[in-house]
Amino acid sequence: MRKVVYNFSPGPGMLPEEVLTASAAALVDYQGSGIGIGEYSHRGKEFDAVRIECEKRIRALMGIGDDYAVLFLQGGATQHFEMIPMNFLKGFAEYVVAGEWGKKAAAAGKRYGDARVIGSSEDLKFTALPTGWKASPEADYLHICSNNTIYGTRSSIFPDHPRLIADMSSEIMSRTVDLKRFAMIYAGAQKNLGIAGVVLCLVRKDLLTRCPEKLPPIFSYAKALENESCLNTPPTFAIYVLLETMKWIERQGGIAAIEQRNEQKAAMLYAAIDGSNGYYKGTVTDLPNRSRMNVTYVLPNEDLTKKFLAGAEKEGLMALKGYRSVGGIRASIYNAMPVAGVAKLVEYMKSFQKANAL
Amino acid sequence: MRKVVYNFSPGPGMLPEEVLTASAAALVDYQGSGIGIGEYSHRGKEFDAVRIECEKRIRALMGIGDDYAVLFLQGGATQHFEMIPMNFLKGFAEYVVAGEWGKKAAAAGKRYGDARVIGSSEDLKFTALPTGWKASPEADYLHICSNNTIYGTRSSIFPDHPRLIADMSSEIMSRTVDLKRFAMIYAGAQKNLGIAGVVLCLVRKDLLTRCPEKLPPIFSYAKALENESCLNTPPTFAIYVLLETMKWIERQGGIAAIEQRNEQKAAMLYAAIDGSNGYYKGTVTDLPNRSRMNVTYVLPNEDLTKKFLAGAEKEGLMALKGYRSVGGIRASIYNAMPVAGVAKLVEYMKSFQKANAL
Repeated sequence: MRKVVYNFSPGPGMLPEEVLTASAAALVDYQGSGIGIGEYSHRGKEFDAVRIECEKRIRALMGIGDDYAVLFLQGGATQHFEMIPMNFLKGFAEYVVAGEWGKKAAAAGKRYGDARVIGSSEDLKFTALPTGWKASPEADYLHICSNNTIYGTRSSIFPDHPRLIADMSSEIMSRTVDLKRFAMIYAGAQKNLGIAGVVLCLVRKDLLTRCPEKLPPIFSYAKALENESCLNTPPTFAIYVLLETMKWIERQGGIAAIEQRNEQKAAMLYAAIDGSNGYYKGTVTDLPNRSRMNVTYVLPNEDLTKKFLAGAEKEGLMALKGYRSVGGIRASIYNAMPVAGVAKLVEYMKSFQKANAL
Repeated sequence: MRKVVYNFSPGPGMLPEEVLTASAAALVDYQGSGIGIGEYSHRGKEFDAVRIECEKRIRALMGIGDDYAVLFLQGGATQHFEMIPMNFLKGFAEYVVAGEWGKKAAAAGKRYGDARVIGSSEDLKFTALPTGWKASPEADYLHICSNNTIYGTRSSIFPDHPRLIADMSSEIMSRTVDLKRFAMIYAGAQKNLGIAGVVLCLVRKDLLTRCPEKLPPIFSYAKALENESCLNTPPTFAIYVLLETMKWIERQGGIAAIEQRNEQKAAMLYAAIDGSNGYYKGTVTDLPNRSRMNVTYVLPNEDLTKKFLAGAEKEGLMALKGYRSVGGIRASIYNAMPVAGVAKLVEYMKSFQKANAL
């Protein structure tokens, strides 16, 4: 057992120790074969079984029907900001921009055609979700980033659109979602699913008929499905870690049980902030849309912030520093963060405030 | 210690057990911190140190000067088939096609402009390297694939060109090369460098001034350098395994020592083939350019091939089946394959021939 510390890193982030232990064992020696899982050909029966089992467990956990493809790709969400318009933008597409990643996605869209930002909260420094926008059902797609890691907001409810595409990198499998509302969900693995290097893409299959034939195959979602995510060598070990994470989520009772725990963790932290008589101030003004994954707040001044962070590390509360453009504190409490970690942070916040009253 | 088997997989392929053991330990608990190396932010000091150390060791092992960038990217060689013309093709580029991957690279080039195949041995079914071609020094670049995993050939000598670009996925760091002869070398990690999911790119910096400003940043080698391979989240754990592999190569005595052992291993196998009175037949006709990494040969008939493969597995000689378009046997003997593995294969070949004489 490793030393117990609580890692609040925004991503790559904390993973369940049992996922890491099982993955580490398979890395060296897969099922006693004398061969590690990362040493098998991606076209052999051993890795094939891993990929198929991983897909099957994802389908079961998220309730994914045959009308959706489950793809394991590379490049991070950033590469998919490019691939989405490459594959699906023909007439015009709409983007709602609620943070840095949504902004980058929209900028990528514009490189390929008529990508319209129909709502943005940049003028509010992304402290709230954009409001007052209306999507066009005839748009090729409506793109959102459902949880904003940097600013600590999330879409509590999802817009209606026949082709809604969501970057869920920082909240995938942290909450139950009705997949039928989405044409595509994609997420880099390094927050809730495993290690960096694989992107999980769920794509409604009717969308895949829109992928241009002349697209380079490596950038085509249709070709990815045709080749079962093995058009070239996929990141086999990252997919193995994903499989172990799926087994862990099952052992937790599934996504609904995880969600309940995530709600509890976020409520504990927001209660500590809101109950601090203004000592800790949440940076998000849009209270119904506060993130359950990334809780952002500030202290009265910069000196106290530094002292808070240094003291937290001594208590084993790691990587709490806020993003440079927001400052203050960001506690990323992904699926793997136990309630005990949040409880310890809350306790530390209270004792710090007492010891450092203004 | 895991059970001793010899894994002749073409890639992902065999890795040194000590690289895997060290990587597995770091995956669970990095330096006793209670945090695994894959759980650290790619922008934090811990991973930064890994990336910097990895680059430093690569530079030392390969003798890379400051005039070359060392980049850790994603997408496999296949994605770089696209990125190379995106970044560097302005007038025309030339490709020498000596196998499947060179062919795919050339096809990708044609999507972006005037990409010319100036030499191909496809009419010989790639049993030899193309001959009789002459490159133009004014071409934007000359592209080769220096080792052909499927067909078992390699470029023993490299052509002269001011902008020579080589896909070395299946032989990087298996032989000493004079880097000054190359404008760019790139290689997927999953054969000689580690696990799948990271591509090592060495690019002469003067080339980077050619990258178009309007290229999507995620596809730009210039932006990759500007952002120290962290434009977005890199595959942090795959880079860690790469670092452990570099330490292992150093412990072997460096690339020159590894090369000597690779020459010995290949010589043992080719001697066994050539000394079998025609029972085993090498598929490559171009003897000076036989690969030191992938040794391809056939048996007298299909039944014997099947029997050979089944018997080999019982001896712990795994993944020897040839590529479907070539058939027969392919023994991939990357850096991690010990001389003992090749000796055991040679011994098995001899006893099989004796027991199954025609």
